[in-house]
Amino acid sequence: MSKQVDVAIIGAGTAGLNAFRQVKQVTSNVVLINDGPYGTTCARVGCMPSKVLIEVAKTFSRREHFDDFGIKGSENLTLDRKQVMQYMRGQRDWFVARVMDGVNQIGEKNIKGRARFVEPQVLEVNGERIQAEKIIIATGSRPIVPPEWHQFGDKVITTDDFFELDELPDSIAVIGLGAIGCELGQALARLGVKVVGVEMLSNVAGLSDPKVNKVAIEELAKSFDVWLETAAQLSETADGKIKVETNDGRSITVDKALASLGRRPNIDNMGLEVFNLDLSNGFKDLVNPHTMQLGDLPLFIAGDVGSLKPILHEVADEGTIAGYNAVQNPVQGFKRRVPLRIAFTDPQVVIVGASFAELAEQDIITGERSFVVQGRTKVMARNHGLLRVYADRQSGRLLGSEMMIPDGEYIGHFLAMAIENEMTVRDVMVTPFYHPTVLEGLDNALNAIAAQLEGGNQGPALKTMN
Amino acid sequence: MSKQVDVAIIGAGTAGLNAFRQVKQVTSNVVLINDGPYGTTCARVGCMPSKVLIEVAKTFSRREHFDDFGIKGSENLTLDRKQVMQYMRGQRDWFVARVMDGVNQIGEKNIKGRARFVEPQVLEVNGERIQAEKIIIATGSRPIVPPEWHQFGDKVITTDDFFELDELPDSIAVIGLGAIGCELGQALARLGVKVVGVEMLSNVAGLSDPKVNKVAIEELAKSFDVWLETAAQLSETADGKIKVETNDGRSITVDKALASLGRRPNIDNMGLEVFNLDLSNGFKDLVNPHTMQLGDLPLFIAGDVGSLKPILHEVADEGTIAGYNAVQNPVQGFKRRVPLRIAFTDPQVVIVGASFAELAEQDIITGERSFVVQGRTKVMARNHGLLRVYADRQSGRLLGSEMMIPDGEYIGHFLAMAIENEMTVRDVMVTPFYHPTVLEGLDNALNAIAAQLEGGNQGPALKTMN
Repeated sequence: MSKQVDVAIIGAGTAGLNAFRQVKQVTSNVVLINDGPYGTTCARVGCMPSKVLIEVAKTFSRREHFDDFGIKGSENLTLDRKQVMQYMRGQRDWFVARVMDGVNQIGEKNIKGRARFVEPQVLEVNGERIQAEKIIIATGSRPIVPPEWHQFGDKVITTDDFFELDELPDSIAVIGLGAIGCELGQALARLGVKVVGVEMLSNVAGLSDPKVNKVAIEELAKSFDVWLETAAQLSETADGKIKVETNDGRSITVDKALASLGRRPNIDNMGLEVFNLDLSNGFKDLVNPHTMQLGDLPLFIAGDVGSLKPILHEVADEGTIAGYNAVQNPVQGFKRRVPLRIAFTDPQVVIVGASFAELAEQDIITGERSFVVQGRTKVMARNHGLLRVYADRQSGRLLGSEMMIPDGEYIGHFLAMAIENEMTVRDVMVTPFYHPTVLEGLDNALNAIAAQLEGGNQGPALKTMN
Repeated sequence: MSKQVDVAIIGAGTAGLNAFRQVKQVTSNVVLINDGPYGTTCARVGCMPSKVLIEVAKTFSRREHFDDFGIKGSENLTLDRKQVMQYMRGQRDWFVARVMDGVNQIGEKNIKGRARFVEPQVLEVNGERIQAEKIIIATGSRPIVPPEWHQFGDKVITTDDFFELDELPDSIAVIGLGAIGCELGQALARLGVKVVGVEMLSNVAGLSDPKVNKVAIEELAKSFDVWLETAAQLSETADGKIKVETNDGRSITVDKALASLGRRPNIDNMGLEVFNLDLSNGFKDLVNPHTMQLGDLPLFIAGDVGSLKPILHEVADEGTIAGYNAVQNPVQGFKRRVPLRIAFTDPQVVIVGASFAELAEQDIITGERSFVVQGRTKVMARNHGLLRVYADRQSGRLLGSEMMIPDGEYIGHFLAMAIENEMTVRDVMVTPFYHPTVLEGLDNALNAIAAQLEGGNQGPALKTMN
């Protein structure tokens, strides 16, 4: 006889835990099934440990300015390459422990084991069958490693392994310069690791605006060698190191290679054949992003496994939506948030709303502001970067922005709220821009757009009163 | 025979320069009359030099964390107390030079000299008479120093003098803990100066929320002694130092006292008697803040001299409004920006929208978030502070916030835009909150409010689709 539940959730990561919390508001007849490590990708091997390393690297690299500032003795600062990793893990463990506090409260509804579909509404776990009205798949993803690199053992690592290293390596090749590759490449270089970054494409950190991309490459290249538009071939040297060779004839020998080539969904060996779906592209084109339902099946997909928006706040939303709809009839569609992507490089890369590439066909005005000569960033001795803001030429509505600027994360959120509320450039310009702030640079970019709109930007940038 | 102009502007600070730029769009028959130093209060002795010192202090104080991070040798870092002042002045001079580039472009329309009213529309400058259709007074303000302290000569200083000191003093008493006193007191203490701060009131940095004020006092007291609710009596010691004594019996002897007691408008010896106004409270209650006109006189008041909103972006607005209306008939009223005040302490004190005190009579819900245990601030090892957000109980509309949190300046701007657009707590909650960011703490505070609103905060914090 099989166990009967209203909802079975497969995967106790961020999406699964959010789904569980949501389902529990309606029914207690729910199980959360998890195979593999608890603690979420974010806390264990993602957002949190990387941000700790980035913070230490940013702090350590600040010593370049000490002498100018009148702070003496920076030449005697050194980095303990073991301790920095221990510190990072200590912080990480604290974050993981906080996740585990939540997991442990779930109690017996939390089943450890691998779930396998035997029918569309029947799972087998640890030899037991569970019949579920609705099933939520939230099994997450794992880093992509080309099969031909498996032979190099622990010389080729991913973010799953990196944070467990006893000490920082002497040298590393970062293969793939998306957000994670850029973040870790720059941080490691600043911590004294010899870094080379290799990327197939001509753009980094997902940027599509050529001007911002150019600035980003220049900024990253201040810390490490950036090799673009080339694949990397790896081989092992006689003394057990990794030789990286590019199509265009460059090569370097390093201790480790970090594969930061993206992630693939965990959909293998789950018995998904029972659904008779074409999963060659995963769930990506099959799931409704507003309901998280897969077609009209009693099946919901949430988080990285769906490959829709593998960013924590979106993954959390997907879990919540899936959990909400798993106990709702009919399902409810939700408007997803304004797109926001941040790479925690220094300066930070941010893409918000529509990207430059997405606006290729649209008649836009672009407002631009360099942060090389900008009051606040000069005060902070962080005067780098470029901001580009896109608005609709007819309506003046804000559409999106790409940037690599100090504290860009905040400018991204600020613009996201404006875009969500369909604000025009002039609507935003009436908000206060305090002096001296980075936001004044945004105001400059908005003014540059307003000058090209009908009516220009003469007179006070304030609302008139009757 | 007197010179005839359309507009005469008295004062070439931020307000006057903005007024000049605005007037010039309509008429070239305008003069800008200035007595005393050029370069703006902000760039010479205000925002800019103070922010540079604050940045150096923040950077130097960061060494407390180096050992934890694995950065070794911080015990050998020292501060060159002359060089830090030289560095600050070098930066300041750069900002002043940028202002002067603008001033120099004005050419012969820029008159150096003291303007004095001889009739409501006639000024005398350097013995010459100037008849003006409209006159804009933008003469700024100066720090308040009690007359009985003048006897102490250069032992009692203000922000007019401080940035010219050859080197940091060994010890200083900061008298008055408004925004400037808090900023400089904390920065100097972090730079190794022995600091005591004395304040008549029980609140610091203009805070009115007792909970936030308590946190702010605790944070400041980590760097220097904070003596509240007491006046300070000064006397000179035999060895030429300043003895500070309080009503409640505390005393300390210091090298310098910094009077940070606010600023008074520059309205003396200008012949303002011709207007027959009661100026016992300055222009404050006489000027229309939406037009900057004084009654129906051909007179406009802009910037610090008006004592309305002595904050740079507001002062700039006032100059622009005054300049716009000086050549406009009838005058146009402009809606002023959402109030935003920032003290660049660490963490930063921010008051945005309505303050707690201003909402005393209103039925509000308060959402609170401590930043002691918060993901991003913990990652940054800057986990301090408290955020309190106020919303209307009936409508859920955001009304204001007081906070002392890391990067509070950005949270302040974000909330200002939401308040300007009359957004509810739930409207803001649908914006993306990236992980891990300080803004997630704001989202928590908003959730705490939403939980108390009708309908609570069950289900996805997203807009539904039809």
